[in-house]
Amino acid sequence: MNQTSNQPRQWDTLQRNRAARLERGRATLGNELAGKSLPAGRIADLLHAVLECGDRVCLEGNNQKQADFLGQALAGLDPARVNGLHMLQSVLALPEHLDVFERGVAAKLDFSFSGPQAGRVAKLLAAGKLNIGAIHTYLELFSRYFVDLPPRVALIAAEAADRDGNLYTGPNTEDTPAIVEATAFKNGIVIVQVNRIMDTLPRVDIPGDWVDFVVQSPAPYYIEPLFTRDPAQISEIQVLMAMMAIKGIYAEYRVERLNHGIGFDTAAIELLLPTYAASLGLQGKIGRHWALNPHPALIPAIESGFVESVYSFGSELGMEDYIRARPDVFAVGPDGSMRSNRAFCQAAGHYACDMFIGSTLQIDLQGNSSTATLGRISGFGGAPNMGADARGRRHASPAWLKAGAEARSGRNTIPRGQKLVVQIVETFREHMQPAFVERLDAWELAEQAGMAIPPVMIYGDDVTHILTEEGIANLLLCRGDAEREQAIRGVAGYTPVGLGRDQAMVADLRRRGIIRRAEDLGIDKRLATRDLLAAKNMKDLVRASGGLYNPPKRFRNW
Amino acid sequence: MNQTSNQPRQWDTLQRNRAARLERGRATLGNELAGKSLPAGRIADLLHAVLECGDRVCLEGNNQKQADFLGQALAGLDPARVNGLHMLQSVLALPEHLDVFERGVAAKLDFSFSGPQAGRVAKLLAAGKLNIGAIHTYLELFSRYFVDLPPRVALIAAEAADRDGNLYTGPNTEDTPAIVEATAFKNGIVIVQVNRIMDTLPRVDIPGDWVDFVVQSPAPYYIEPLFTRDPAQISEIQVLMAMMAIKGIYAEYRVERLNHGIGFDTAAIELLLPTYAASLGLQGKIGRHWALNPHPALIPAIESGFVESVYSFGSELGMEDYIRARPDVFAVGPDGSMRSNRAFCQAAGHYACDMFIGSTLQIDLQGNSSTATLGRISGFGGAPNMGADARGRRHASPAWLKAGAEARSGRNTIPRGQKLVVQIVETFREHMQPAFVERLDAWELAEQAGMAIPPVMIYGDDVTHILTEEGIANLLLCRGDAEREQAIRGVAGYTPVGLGRDQAMVADLRRRGIIRRAEDLGIDKRLATRDLLAAKNMKDLVRASGGLYNPPKRFRNW
Repeated sequence: MNQTSNQPRQWDTLQRNRAARLERGRATLGNELAGKSLPAGRIADLLHAVLECGDRVCLEGNNQKQADFLGQALAGLDPARVNGLHMLQSVLALPEHLDVFERGVAAKLDFSFSGPQAGRVAKLLAAGKLNIGAIHTYLELFSRYFVDLPPRVALIAAEAADRDGNLYTGPNTEDTPAIVEATAFKNGIVIVQVNRIMDTLPRVDIPGDWVDFVVQSPAPYYIEPLFTRDPAQISEIQVLMAMMAIKGIYAEYRVERLNHGIGFDTAAIELLLPTYAASLGLQGKIGRHWALNPHPALIPAIESGFVESVYSFGSELGMEDYIRARPDVFAVGPDGSMRSNRAFCQAAGHYACDMFIGSTLQIDLQGNSSTATLGRISGFGGAPNMGADARGRRHASPAWLKAGAEARSGRNTIPRGQKLVVQIVETFREHMQPAFVERLDAWELAEQAGMAIPPVMIYGDDVTHILTEEGIANLLLCRGDAEREQAIRGVAGYTPVGLGRDQAMVADLRRRGIIRRAEDLGIDKRLATRDLLAAKNMKDLVRASGGLYNPPKRFRNW
Repeated sequence: MNQTSNQPRQWDTLQRNRAARLERGRATLGNELAGKSLPAGRIADLLHAVLECGDRVCLEGNNQKQADFLGQALAGLDPARVNGLHMLQSVLALPEHLDVFERGVAAKLDFSFSGPQAGRVAKLLAAGKLNIGAIHTYLELFSRYFVDLPPRVALIAAEAADRDGNLYTGPNTEDTPAIVEATAFKNGIVIVQVNRIMDTLPRVDIPGDWVDFVVQSPAPYYIEPLFTRDPAQISEIQVLMAMMAIKGIYAEYRVERLNHGIGFDTAAIELLLPTYAASLGLQGKIGRHWALNPHPALIPAIESGFVESVYSFGSELGMEDYIRARPDVFAVGPDGSMRSNRAFCQAAGHYACDMFIGSTLQIDLQGNSSTATLGRISGFGGAPNMGADARGRRHASPAWLKAGAEARSGRNTIPRGQKLVVQIVETFREHMQPAFVERLDAWELAEQAGMAIPPVMIYGDDVTHILTEEGIANLLLCRGDAEREQAIRGVAGYTPVGLGRDQAMVADLRRRGIIRRAEDLGIDKRLATRDLLAAKNMKDLVRASGGLYNPPKRFRNW
């Protein structure tokens, strides 16, 4: 049609480029390539042969599982031969994830979370060694892999492969299916590190047709037990907050399907389900279905029959045998081992859950919250997806209808449900930093890093409740920005924000049930002791599991 | 812990139930079962053996692909033996999808769309033969399969299987991976109808480990060419509206990534890209990446280089050879045939697109729209998911930032982007029914059908623009409900809603650029002729494709 040149357009450049890369890889490895499998010692040669400068490379850095062998190989490449890579990565967790930028192998980054490396990300950015495309929530990043950011090369990790390149990813499947599908079906190259090569896999999770090269790594892939919290570290303040959450929110809205964030605040709630919540007669009424990693702190609630099902983003180290012995609760395959899938679990967290509850570092007077702090570019992982109203949701539940009705009471608008998004924080966090601030650090960070807008984890207009040791602020019921601000100040304790409250307005909000203290909920603070925890330490969790839970060494102190 | 009975709890009831079902199935089929494969004539026996009363059964009724052989078999079962099934289904498209309720085999339904059968759904509901759980958007329904609605049995359709039960789903993959994963990893049973059994598949799309029984159906599965629109039926009004969309919205916001709804309104836009949009110098600036089925109307824009990539929910009949010859544009596998995946494409439509534009039947004064009409319970398919602001999105783009800034201008609130959600409608639809109404039929339908809230397709607070032949109303710029109402009235033409406008307010809105007419956009209405269409009929589309597009018979009139 409007062709500017006379040459016919090529429509198969990706296909031909893929064929050329495969050919280069095969030529380099020669007869050291057995089927799709190469010796670990040749990985750098393969990567030098297959990669091209400027490639979009998806390295499997997940929330937990790491393709660390491939990541190290990548970081060790010769920047004179391979440079300017555009890294696509859910999580930057390991030093080598930044070494690629330090060494000039890579230049650009699109990601979701960089918690452990957030300071180094900021430094490399300031030094001009790293250019950030954008920060995403996980499902958003996967989505772009299918639209405008398809990986040319994916470097992934699996438990095992067979001779045909079929993969077993087992309990720690996490992001693998999303990455491989996006790459394999856009004529990209898929290279996988496996812990072992087997004749027959326990089950096939990824078809070998989608995989190009397999390498058995010298050591099993690194995996982080990210969701393990020792109950011994839960404070009585956290027990009190958990009681308020259960009685003032879970029971109030009859929350049956939900997701919990990481942390001791929510671990305390999990450990109060079979004790405090059960004593309120809530079994079978709240907390029935979960989109959640297999949190060890959930074991007592599972054993008591409180929890009916758990679908997971990823697994948790040490929970393998327990999960295998509780197949009615977890998603397990015909082989008996768990299946996780971050893409589907994030979709479930967004669309099939009535509530997200999690913690944060800073909350401002509009209820915007962020974990971004100066000098650290950390991203938010899955929180923005789950801590946002699912406006496309159409199925009703009591929790969703009640939250929606509260948000719209007195307004002439069509009825609609709403997701419960709860921020649970102590008014002061570590080092006596106030959790409530007039202005988020995110503003200054955005300026420093040249971001288009401040990096907010959860926006104030998506937050429905803020829960502190001082009480619960129900933002759904606030009419106007002024009320909202006072509701937040009214639970902000002795922070400057809390001290700045208008006493009369706060008293009025409390009279109207918009702010509720423990005593308003009929909670006797004297009962908020660690005695309420269904497990008081790691050993209790092991005992509750009937010895099936096998915590990683660092969590064993006996 | 809090066990009420003394009997130890069973944790593997699903696993043992699965084993019992498999055993019954195998015993029934005896040596007629070859590996996983059974003769078509024995399908009813297998279903009688494997199903249990009250089972949640997911029948693959997709937007396009139908497991029709299995659906017919299900509808023909003996209700004395199998009854009370709870059907889970994306789309109810075929008569047998309702016959199961008519005959008492099934009793409950959770679904997303029932367009062709919407009248019968309403009748069966009224007759007490069908109980609706809820209406969902597709990704929401898939999400619940992993949380509180896991299928016990999935009845699905694939192109081919090999002897081990590995499946090739090819271009029409659609919902299959989501359904199979949810079922296989919750100890359910997966039964698949295939068009043929092959020794070696073109590629494996679903691992055989996830599949229990395979039956070769007597005829290939039914598939609907849902996205084919004959350009001959596009009116000059639609050409004018397409010009306004391109100049007033696509160019204005620099929309690079988007999804189009089904219909002639958006087909007109697709056919104006290589002509009108190119003449405005917009190539490379708008419409570069698409989450879209392979619309035949997009062929001229692809050929001209306007469209860079298309990722699809499902395929489109007749487009197979064209897609195979344009692998740079479409998602194709190593074998050269397309891959579709509704779950990922809906995620992409939600999170990776700057705009959704589609049509509707009714819009009220708050901008709420619905395709629900009295006596028809149709659901909304994917529209609620794509026609909603993605509040979890965090990556920026010019379109998203501009929409977000407009929505927040003059308000003291933290900056945030927003998705463009455009409703494109003629003020009168078929049979001179006004598209603008004071009150949606959805209200009355909700009462009739006992729904908790009226079934709204897209909520007014998610809609950013309404485009009619009279102009564009930019709802982002409206301050308050009164302005919003007048902006809507101001493009509602000669409908009663349009005639009820406040002339002074509408003039003011126009002065402020909130309402824009064709002339305000510098569009000469005299140029809005069918001459602007890059293809004027089906034959033109075939020609534009270089003969690669092969339209279904019903679209061929030569």
